[in-house]
Amino acid sequence: MPRKQQNEDALLGKIWDSFRSSPGRGAGRSVSLGIGDDAALFCPKHGHEIILTCDWFLEGTHFLPKKHPPDAVGWKCLARAVSDIAAMGGAPRCFLLGLALPETRTGRWLDVFLGGLRRASGKLQCALAGGDTTRRDEILINITAVGEVPAGRALLRSGARADDLIYVSGRLGEAELGLQMVRRSAGTASPQDPLTRKHLYPQPRLALGQWLAKKGLASAMMDLSDGLSSDLARLCAASAVGARLEKRKIPQVRTPHLALKHGHHPEQLALHGGDDYELLFTVPPPKIKLLPKSFQGVGLAAIGKITRERDVLLVEENGRESPFTPAGWDPFRKRL
Amino acid sequence: MPRKQQNEDALLGKIWDSFRSSPGRGAGRSVSLGIGDDAALFCPKHGHEIILTCDWFLEGTHFLPKKHPPDAVGWKCLARAVSDIAAMGGAPRCFLLGLALPETRTGRWLDVFLGGLRRASGKLQCALAGGDTTRRDEILINITAVGEVPAGRALLRSGARADDLIYVSGRLGEAELGLQMVRRSAGTASPQDPLTRKHLYPQPRLALGQWLAKKGLASAMMDLSDGLSSDLARLCAASAVGARLEKRKIPQVRTPHLALKHGHHPEQLALHGGDDYELLFTVPPPKIKLLPKSFQGVGLAAIGKITRERDVLLVEENGRESPFTPAGWDPFRKRL
Repeated sequence: MPRKQQNEDALLGKIWDSFRSSPGRGAGRSVSLGIGDDAALFCPKHGHEIILTCDWFLEGTHFLPKKHPPDAVGWKCLARAVSDIAAMGGAPRCFLLGLALPETRTGRWLDVFLGGLRRASGKLQCALAGGDTTRRDEILINITAVGEVPAGRALLRSGARADDLIYVSGRLGEAELGLQMVRRSAGTASPQDPLTRKHLYPQPRLALGQWLAKKGLASAMMDLSDGLSSDLARLCAASAVGARLEKRKIPQVRTPHLALKHGHHPEQLALHGGDDYELLFTVPPPKIKLLPKSFQGVGLAAIGKITRERDVLLVEENGRESPFTPAGWDPFRKRL
Repeated sequence: MPRKQQNEDALLGKIWDSFRSSPGRGAGRSVSLGIGDDAALFCPKHGHEIILTCDWFLEGTHFLPKKHPPDAVGWKCLARAVSDIAAMGGAPRCFLLGLALPETRTGRWLDVFLGGLRRASGKLQCALAGGDTTRRDEILINITAVGEVPAGRALLRSGARADDLIYVSGRLGEAELGLQMVRRSAGTASPQDPLTRKHLYPQPRLALGQWLAKKGLASAMMDLSDGLSSDLARLCAASAVGARLEKRKIPQVRTPHLALKHGHHPEQLALHGGDDYELLFTVPPPKIKLLPKSFQGVGLAAIGKITRERDVLLVEENGRESPFTPAGWDPFRKRL
């Protein structure tokens, strides 16, 4: 065919080709038409609601190209969008990739980025359905993730009631410590370092979220993306309730001696650190006995109680109470 | 509630509030949960496929803040995404708004932008379902539009066959002339000028697209976003066919004397100008007699024929043929 290929089409073709043999194609059975037309087509399951979420992932704001390996950028941009689906108790189905790139990034950087994205797509069973590409001086990513949940079963932020117990999965502050380590690294961070792993390769708690939704155990749920202090305030506002957290019960990142020396206090990391993508959920008192201590190897900890009074309070070991003010990640307050 | 509101939440709240009384809420009946949770929930109609599309709309690449009125930016970012739904023969349902803004744009600029977006949402019956906001030095917009089409009825790019007639709606090149006028304007362009209207406020051909899909008249369809030369090449590549276009049959923008003086040739504008958001579609010979000359006041013109040979050719009035090479908008080739 003696036709000059259009540059934008060539880039879309490269992305699409890289996903042809992806293990995520299993989930792709619900995608009846992918990249290459005006839009993608998706067949919803009968009796299900569609979960829709979109997430920015921007150079300089959410990642630093000199510090963050492109493979981790690819993994994380999808994983954090899928975490919003986990937070509703849903199952991921497909995603759209909005990608703006400098021409200098359309070679090796793009290949390695697509490698990480493809692994996330396969692991999270979330197939590439479509996207839009354009040229730009900086790398801009916008991911739209699409999931499903049986109608009426989604877990919202607004369902918490007084006396419900507040739970978190995993240990908090691990990703924030990882970010500090990445910032401190001379060049590109090593994905092998266990201290940076949670920051570079977050794992959305899909199985836990779906199990809580299916069993009807949680009254409210959200994922921890901006930090406990910021996100708990959102859950309480949505439910028109308050909370009393017991500081000693919050599972904290295990900080090695070196990190402590650099002034990283596990308590502060756990209270305000972002990017953990653990689940924060509330359980009504009669259902507490049905909740295990851990789920598929991830700890579940009761860290406090929902209150009728709308303040969010933090209780010290000595019983002293203080307001638990949002101090997590807010793009309008601070930069990466 | 004595709690410091988080800045990002305040911005999301402002956006959501601005859509509460929006006329688009009618379409919003299918959105069961909107902004304010981890994700949105959408109830699909039984027996329908979901149409998914995302579109960048970036400062400097797709619009110039000093020249484009924020109201038009709001209208157009949604209208062009919805045009991809029209191009599948579908009906829009809801959209997600990815918006990154400098703090200086969170006041009046944002208000007027949201006004235009709200009018588009109402007119196009496409409800705001959710979104993500962040701070950025430049205005970045990414719209995900979600639509529906009866299962198996979507019109794809890949269905054109030899001897099908090629049609376009409307006049081509109007939006490109509008862009040239906007570029030339001293300050912000006037939305009242009829020459800039099509560039600033494109109208997705939803009714025409749905009618063609419902009646089964078109074998292939797409919208004209990058220009006839670029987009026809895509339709032909997807269908593994070629085309012979008759130049004299292509409905061209009516160029006023002033525009001609500035060197804007209607023929070039019509052949390569982008952003018209008209429909390009092919009709098998037995169905041609069912096609009216115009649909709801928009002209429908047969401009050529699909061929088995895979070249795309342009035929002059004197019968001379030449290759019709893609020379429309390509973000990797040129800038706004």
